Amino acid sequence: MNARPIICLLTDFGLQDVYVGVMKTVIARIAPEAICVDLTHEIPPGDIRAGAFALWQTAGPGRLPLGTTVLAVVDPGVGTNRKAVVVDLGSHTYVGPDNGLVSYLLSEPIRAYELPLPSRASQTFHGRDVFAPAAAHLAAGAAMTDLGAPVKELVRLPAQHFELSQTGARAEVLHVDRFGNAVTGIALAYQGETVDVRGFTGGAGARWPVSRLEVVLDNGKHAPLRGTYGDVADGAVLAYLGSCGLLEIGIRNGNASEILGLHHGSGVTLQLV
Amino acid sequence: MNARPIICLLTDFGLQDVYVGVMKTVIARIAPEAICVDLTHEIPPGDIRAGAFALWQTAGPGRLPLGTTVLAVVDPGVGTNRKAVVVDLGSHTYVGPDNGLVSYLLSEPIRAYELPLPSRASQTFHGRDVFAPAAAHLAAGAAMTDLGAPVKELVRLPAQHFELSQTGARAEVLHVDRFGNAVTGIALAYQGETVDVRGFTGGAGARWPVSRLEVVLDNGKHAPLRGTYGDVADGAVLAYLGSCGLLEIGIRNGNASEILGLHHGSGVTLQLV
Amino acid sequence: MNARPIICLLTDFGLQDVYVGVMKTVIARIAPEAICVDLTHEIPPGDIRAGAFALWQTAGPGRLPLGTTVLAVVDPGVGTNRKAVVVDLGSHTYVGPDNGLVSYLLSEPIRAYELPLPSRASQTFHGRDVFAPAAAHLAAGAAMTDLGAPVKELVRLPAQHFELSQTGARAEVLHVDRFGNAVTGIALAYQGETVDVRGFTGGAGARWPVSRLEVVLDNGKHAPLRGTYGDVADGAVLAYLGSCGLLEIGIRNGNASEILGLHHGSGVTLQLV
Repeated sequence: MNARPIICLLTDFGLQDVYVGVMKTVIARIAPEAICVDLTHEIPPGDIRAGAFALWQTAGPGRLPLGTTVLAVVDPGVGTNRKAVVVDLGSHTYVGPDNGLVSYLLSEPIRAYELPLPSRASQTFHGRDVFAPAAAHLAAGAAMTDLGAPVKELVRLPAQHFELSQTGARAEVLHVDRFGNAVTGIALAYQGETVDVRGFTGGAGARWPVSRLEVVLDNGKHAPLRGTYGDVADGAVLAYLGSCGLLEIGIRNGNASEILGLHHGSGVTLQLV
Repeated sequence: MNARPIICLLTDFGLQDVYVGVMKTVIARIAPEAICVDLTHEIPPGDIRAGAFALWQTAGPGRLPLGTTVLAVVDPGVGTNRKAVVVDLGSHTYVGPDNGLVSYLLSEPIRAYELPLPSRASQTFHGRDVFAPAAAHLAAGAAMTDLGAPVKELVRLPAQHFELSQTGARAEVLHVDRFGNAVTGIALAYQGETVDVRGFTGGAGARWPVSRLEVVLDNGKHAPLRGTYGDVADGAVLAYLGSCGLLEIGIRNGNASEILGLHHGSGVTLQLV
Repeated sequence: MNARPIICLLTDFGLQDVYVGVMKTVIARIAPEAICVDLTHEIPPGDIRAGAFALWQTAGPGRLPLGTTVLAVVDPGVGTNRKAVVVDLGSHTYVGPDNGLVSYLLSEPIRAYELPLPSRASQTFHGRDVFAPAAAHLAAGAAMTDLGAPVKELVRLPAQHFELSQTGARAEVLHVDRFGNAVTGIALAYQGETVDVRGFTGGAGARWPVSRLEVVLDNGKHAPLRGTYGDVADGAVLAYLGSCGLLEIGIRNGNASEILGLHHGSGVTLQLV
């Protein structure tokens, strides 16, 4: 057990209400030594897919400190018969609803446990009454297997669209960030003059020469593949390897989403030329 | 003294300015072991009533860990002769202006102390110069009685509208949350097939059969009393017991405030049928 | 070394993305005992000047606890040849890009060190890969001189407009806060019945009788110099000494920026009458 266990929080609660703070007071009572790190609380209300992607961005392989507990609550089904679960992700642990939120982080075999509902749990705020206490007890040293009974299957989101052909790879914009950069579902791994291309959650891939690749948006606009914003002129479009290993579309000192009309679901093709 | 005392912060400062961060650096200097928990900093500027209700939501009986210090700053009268006070709330402590902000948490007899103004205090930022230092000293172990002279009376907000009759209870929407759920001033406590109904700060109540109750909005719309969102169809209106013990109006996967025109002050009736 | 070193964070990342949280997990891994304090993450995207001013507001002389590390990332040039630096500011330390962000806190001689880029650093997120690790290592006890080679010059922003004459001082609005208060570049230091007036980063000043001063906005509106909001009638304009030592323009229980049309760059004159 780390002397200062880390609990990462991700919700769709926003910050204008007291809900996030209330969860943290629950944690502080049970695990006063825990370090609470807010990933974000601005997932659009009820948007499980957006939450799942933000979790993947932060908690993908090798990203979080070993032993981190990820407390995630995007939970439109709260109070229904959807399960509350703890999932062992190997180097870290997910605590939250079983509604697909942890989809993009799963690998086989599933090691998950169903959290029982305390008799006095609210029917609308399991973040406070179920998930935060479980995360805090884990951080304070409880064993996952002591928290609930094993679960064999978990709800999964449909796979994100990713299509590989002889002439390129095609996927969608998965997220637009504060700067207007559009993060796509195409994962890139540079190997010298070539780049390995695959879907963001893995699967079959291809290796292509970097010099023969460019990005084409569904509106016909082209974006050259570059290293960083400063490699193009002010106001120019570029595609680049983003900080979580995915192809992104940006504009130097500009908002690519607004200017190019890129949103979640916009089609993007990485094309061999 | 807890090894890791908790200080909860609530202000109307927002997060785009550095004011909240500055208060926390003051606390970190005086009480480095304190855990700072943000309740919210998005209380509308100067809205003491909204701040008082958010404090009640988080710091009502039994909610906060024992010994928590609540540092609250919604303070349009900063620099005038309104008092700066520490109030002993029994299981926890309020530090902030004497302007009604702590109204909904008070019980008799009042145990409060007036904080003296340091000679170098700014006239416009007592959060930094008066309240944060006092909260931090309390968290670090100072006795309330050492911080200032006793105060006999505190400013109080007018009571929220709550009306009980033979045919039902009537109150107002006190808060609309991020999801568009409307939180009313009607407190519910289920007892099997019946429910105790009273105003959110206590007082006289009634006990009614759950099966005979429904909610009627001032615009004539009806809302059935249910357990949670998932108990009604997508897009349907419901009333339910919210996570802080109050009757709320929501729409499953929808924004009740926008769709039903519910705002602070909207009238809501819990009706015997 | 403090048992609980303080790291203050300031970025233009916003809170809807996971970027700030990711930086904090990096810090938690390297310096688990560090107290992370968010100054603000809502600097407008790429606005180095606004970030530099917010840093001055929080980290000006005497403001931060001794030994605090300030981790600041407003970094439109990330991935280009702009340097990554650590700057010794005497009582505290800046870690961030060399792009002018630390301009208003510099004094001679410059004591700065260039951070080398780790070979696996992303080209677009030095906050995670360069600055957060450096700040955490400093907080954990590393010596600045061990982090990089000395740098002789740093990029500086142009000085803010400040003009002193026989009849008054003239400067611009540097920041509008959440309440609509306009913070100007005129620093005031009261000395009994007189006030010392100079530019916010120092330089030549004047001493004038308080009773002979008033503030005139470029639109012709006048604002009397008062102590605090409560010193004028509801809805009335006032000028006052703000909490960071600068002249501010406000309206009691109103939004001065909206009502008076004050924005960054609006001209303000402190006039001898």
